Amino acid sequence: MTQPAPRSADPIRVGVIGARGRMGAEVCRAVAAADGMELVATVDAGDPLAALSDAGVEVVVDFTHPNVVMDNVRFCVDRGIHCVVGTSGFDQQRMAAIGAWLAPKPELGVLLAPNFAIGAVLSMRFAELAAKYYESVEIIELHHPRKADAPSGTATHTAALVEKARAAAGLGLSPDATTAEVDGARGALVDGVRVHSIRLSGLIAHQEVLFGMAGETLSIRHDSLDRTSFMPGVLLAVREIRTHPGLTVGLDKFLDL
Amino acid sequence: MTQPAPRSADPIRVGVIGARGRMGAEVCRAVAAADGMELVATVDAGDPLAALSDAGVEVVVDFTHPNVVMDNVRFCVDRGIHCVVGTSGFDQQRMAAIGAWLAPKPELGVLLAPNFAIGAVLSMRFAELAAKYYESVEIIELHHPRKADAPSGTATHTAALVEKARAAAGLGLSPDATTAEVDGARGALVDGVRVHSIRLSGLIAHQEVLFGMAGETLSIRHDSLDRTSFMPGVLLAVREIRTHPGLTVGLDKFLDL
Amino acid sequence: MTQPAPRSADPIRVGVIGARGRMGAEVCRAVAAADGMELVATVDAGDPLAALSDAGVEVVVDFTHPNVVMDNVRFCVDRGIHCVVGTSGFDQQRMAAIGAWLAPKPELGVLLAPNFAIGAVLSMRFAELAAKYYESVEIIELHHPRKADAPSGTATHTAALVEKARAAAGLGLSPDATTAEVDGARGALVDGVRVHSIRLSGLIAHQEVLFGMAGETLSIRHDSLDRTSFMPGVLLAVREIRTHPGLTVGLDKFLDL
Amino acid sequence: MTQPAPRSADPIRVGVIGARGRMGAEVCRAVAAADGMELVATVDAGDPLAALSDAGVEVVVDFTHPNVVMDNVRFCVDRGIHCVVGTSGFDQQRMAAIGAWLAPKPELGVLLAPNFAIGAVLSMRFAELAAKYYESVEIIELHHPRKADAPSGTATHTAALVEKARAAAGLGLSPDATTAEVDGARGALVDGVRVHSIRLSGLIAHQEVLFGMAGETLSIRHDSLDRTSFMPGVLLAVREIRTHPGLTVGLDKFLDL
Repeated sequence: MTQPAPRSADPIRVGVIGARGRMGAEVCRAVAAADGMELVATVDAGDPLAALSDAGVEVVVDFTHPNVVMDNVRFCVDRGIHCVVGTSGFDQQRMAAIGAWLAPKPELGVLLAPNFAIGAVLSMRFAELAAKYYESVEIIELHHPRKADAPSGTATHTAALVEKARAAAGLGLSPDATTAEVDGARGALVDGVRVHSIRLSGLIAHQEVLFGMAGETLSIRHDSLDRTSFMPGVLLAVREIRTHPGLTVGLDKFLDL
Repeated sequence: MTQPAPRSADPIRVGVIGARGRMGAEVCRAVAAADGMELVATVDAGDPLAALSDAGVEVVVDFTHPNVVMDNVRFCVDRGIHCVVGTSGFDQQRMAAIGAWLAPKPELGVLLAPNFAIGAVLSMRFAELAAKYYESVEIIELHHPRKADAPSGTATHTAALVEKARAAAGLGLSPDATTAEVDGARGALVDGVRVHSIRLSGLIAHQEVLFGMAGETLSIRHDSLDRTSFMPGVLLAVREIRTHPGLTVGLDKFLDL
Repeated sequence: MTQPAPRSADPIRVGVIGARGRMGAEVCRAVAAADGMELVATVDAGDPLAALSDAGVEVVVDFTHPNVVMDNVRFCVDRGIHCVVGTSGFDQQRMAAIGAWLAPKPELGVLLAPNFAIGAVLSMRFAELAAKYYESVEIIELHHPRKADAPSGTATHTAALVEKARAAAGLGLSPDATTAEVDGARGALVDGVRVHSIRLSGLIAHQEVLFGMAGETLSIRHDSLDRTSFMPGVLLAVREIRTHPGLTVGLDKFLDL
Repeated sequence: MTQPAPRSADPIRVGVIGARGRMGAEVCRAVAAADGMELVATVDAGDPLAALSDAGVEVVVDFTHPNVVMDNVRFCVDRGIHCVVGTSGFDQQRMAAIGAWLAPKPELGVLLAPNFAIGAVLSMRFAELAAKYYESVEIIELHHPRKADAPSGTATHTAALVEKARAAAGLGLSPDATTAEVDGARGALVDGVRVHSIRLSGLIAHQEVLFGMAGETLSIRHDSLDRTSFMPGVLLAVREIRTHPGLTVGLDKFLDL
């Protein structure tokens, strides 16, 4: 007697690779506590990936390392397991390889997402939508003082999105009559957008995009307090990946925006 | 020999009704200064509306009074003039009447917009889009202390949009363990959303929508400093109305969102 | 041969009562890591207080319970140990009792502090100083949704300080022309000051005092992320208590304001 | 028959020099509308200063030009008229000269104030008071895009006050692990304090001082909307100058801080 095909009401069978890392452990907790999904396999460095297929995993979540992530994705795609990937280090070549692996499996999905914080994803999308309507835009990002790079990757990415939308609308640089500047006061120019990086004890990770025109301003601010803030995005991705076949880059593609 | 049909490069011929009122006067200044449009007729109480058709007006802007606005719109629709209306006081019955007038003129457009501040329109739309992703939402609106109503119309409208999006996603009330409340501390409950009204000398018109879930918050804030903030929205409407036939309610329909 | 008297450069010998509680454990970690002090004794429910005097404790920190704190303070005062107390539940009668115990010991100090977050203490003091210069004032406090009371104790205390300063300057209520209010929109009236309580997932403990007059506003905002934020205030109190004999209520008395 | 000496209940007789300038005209309006003072003389370029003494002016307000202000002050001091001066351009030499003129007139006062916005003065003072308690501090100033200098004079002055307070408390630079910086991202280093200058259409003049340590942040923000925001400070100075003899620099000396 064969098992009936899983109905949509059955819990999603989830596996986690990198399960003992900081993000992976958080994902394990989140999946175990979530409605409609079940944590059925966890592996980390040294464990056989076969544990995933043996457990009948439908969706795998991978927070590992650029060195191993391609092998992990290959393994899963070959076995018909959807992949939600938070590991970094994907260039055009790697994406093309994954696309080729997926080609013969039209029902299977792989998501590569650099940021799972839904608020960060929404912020970037809203900034992109608002950009063409405003004469001025600047970005302030605020982080703890242990951060090595300035501006943050999210701010750099936001500036690129905003600039692209401004250019498409025929907007040039924001107006600026500064003639006497103490070096650095006006921030970094990233894709034509001024970005300011604050580093302050007591802060975690925050970003504010400021838009302005005569008589009004609009501000979109995101505050991230800890890595639990990534979990709703991971869970949303686990739920959505099964109906988004092919290679997707960016969690925003799974949101209704 | 007949005049050639206006090409898209010709300036739009704009008329203003209520031209001596505070908003109307501002609209006259803005139209006169704008690229791609020309202020060809201005009328106010006591002036004949025929001045509009005599001047070959293509688009009229009306900031007048609920008592006269229906006559103004009727006059314009009858003469094939598009209408951008900022006057308030439209109910279902009035909208139905305008719809009936427009029926035989498939190329003609009428826009009714309660708020022309682009930032306010964007804020409301972004709040609507974000609503389904967050466990918690509250609205703070801040105005000068001469305002008679609390909450503001914009906050009430935002709460309704947010609630509708939450309901569609199966979300109930935001979590709240308050058991001991000094009357009013938790704000007004508007469509299931807590709204807080600040009244403070020195402020003009501001609104902040706060969303939150475990580990992160998102805030969308709009600051309006004076009525010049409505002009970019009015000009955008004047440009767009000619390609949006029929009756449109809300400037957001003319934005790419 | 006797030990020489401790010089000021010697580390302060600190004991903690309630050392296994959440706050007490945090205090132990903070004292152990701080320059210029040494954690020499820790006691909790069931442990003999004599461990403190046996270890030569100079300053004790007490985060325990209203039921036992008076016995703890009595024990310490009798043995010449300075007390830094974060436990709540002190009324006029209890303070009078402590004052009487201290009377014969002019060199000994006891501090009762309801809030050790230096930023909260500074915020309240700055609000008190600014109050007389502004026509309008309102308070917004924002907390996680598990909080039972609204407004917060800190907001209530701030309102009282602000009102007292306004009254001394002959200021009445902030101007407010509200005539149509949805119940609660204008917040709670606490000592004549409007206070608004936001409850939102993702928030911890935050407060903003807003002042306004024609043409300008001033805002004082404090954000508290976790209980480590109380430690700098506790350490400052441990250092200062030895030069502030007698009974002191409120950490602000130890700050240079 | 002689006039009786003015009683304290009599309105203060105020004169304005530079009365037709933008600030001067605003001062005339504010004085005329204020309780307890009377505008009895107004002069501008070309008018005889004698109009002031002829009108029995007790306090003069000067918003003129560095080229003429010294003559104005000399004239007033010689005739026993108190001076409230908002004109810029005072160096040590000029201050010494005024001090010498005042020496034989122990009852007479001159105030030189670079900024009359009470909120700006309070912000700077609060920043100075808070500075020693926080590990980190940064300043963000936000202005309209027509401003020529970055950072603003107020931000530069605030940084100097904060640095002085930090140095006195033995604090060095705020912690900062930045190793990879896009030029300018971390702002300008002004007296050891990072200052960020935002320029945005729709803004007027705003400043935020951010303090942080483990677990908490404190923010002091001032928003100035127009030059009416200077008037409460001017009126306060007019009232206070009569009881503050000698030369005073900075309106903060007249506030209870």
